[in-house]
Amino acid sequence: MPVHSIATNDITSPGDYVTRFIENIEQSHFTAAMDMVSDDCEYDNVPITKVFGKEAMIQILSDFLAAATKVEWLIHHQVSNGDMEHGVVMNERTDRFEMDGRWIELDIAGLFVVSNGKIALWRDYFDRESFTKALATK
Amino acid sequence: MPVHSIATNDITSPGDYVTRFIENIEQSHFTAAMDMVSDDCEYDNVPITKVFGKEAMIQILSDFLAAATKVEWLIHHQVSNGDMEHGVVMNERTDRFEMDGRWIELDIAGLFVVSNGKIALWRDYFDRESFTKALATK
Repeated sequence: MPVHSIATNDITSPGDYVTRFIENIEQSHFTAAMDMVSDDCEYDNVPITKVFGKEAMIQILSDFLAAATKVEWLIHHQVSNGDMEHGVVMNERTDRFEMDGRWIELDIAGLFVVSNGKIALWRDYFDRESFTKALATK
Repeated sequence: MPVHSIATNDITSPGDYVTRFIENIEQSHFTAAMDMVSDDCEYDNVPITKVFGKEAMIQILSDFLAAATKVEWLIHHQVSNGDMEHGVVMNERTDRFEMDGRWIELDIAGLFVVSNGKIALWRDYFDRESFTKALATK
């Protein structure tokens, strides 16, 4: 049974906010995660495509996450500045997905801009071919 | 005539240190830039290869930079924590190189770890194919 999601209104720093967002993704609290992004959020997978708006983000993420039986996003480094009105967070991650009984992994550097208390921009830098190959060998 | 490089011993924050490092690269102060990295620095172009040691870094960078008549690395966002003893800096950049009269561009997210007053790790995340194509169309 998944752990219950935790309220986000106690969070005062953009770094902690992004950490909570990722925890929600990992723990399959998808609705709670999407509550943390703005309605007009820009979601940019740099080498693939960018979309605008929470609905488009939900479409992309829900399809992909639904194919994974487990999700682990390991944060190797995370740095941030600003506050919940306007903050910038960058992290270095390995995003891992268990699919069909095998783990696939992708090395990523991500940028998150927090604006007016929500994630307004999420931009992930990675190598498209590494991602395609990882998916193909799952 | 290139601007003279500026002393780095007045810098007290890892973010400013990385900014100065990039300015040195842009202004063709290559030796000054390399003075800012540790002898055993890890230099990791994630989708291509990583090398260890300043000499290997110099080999890769000097060959590439020598092919460019101008270099501009635009920093869109940069965040950092820690101090000059141990600090972490991440930035989102567009690295631009003028080659054969044309500008080629690459979108990058970079991680720099400053340790004991020098850059000890520099890791750039980008899409390899985008880089290859940009070089091919120069």
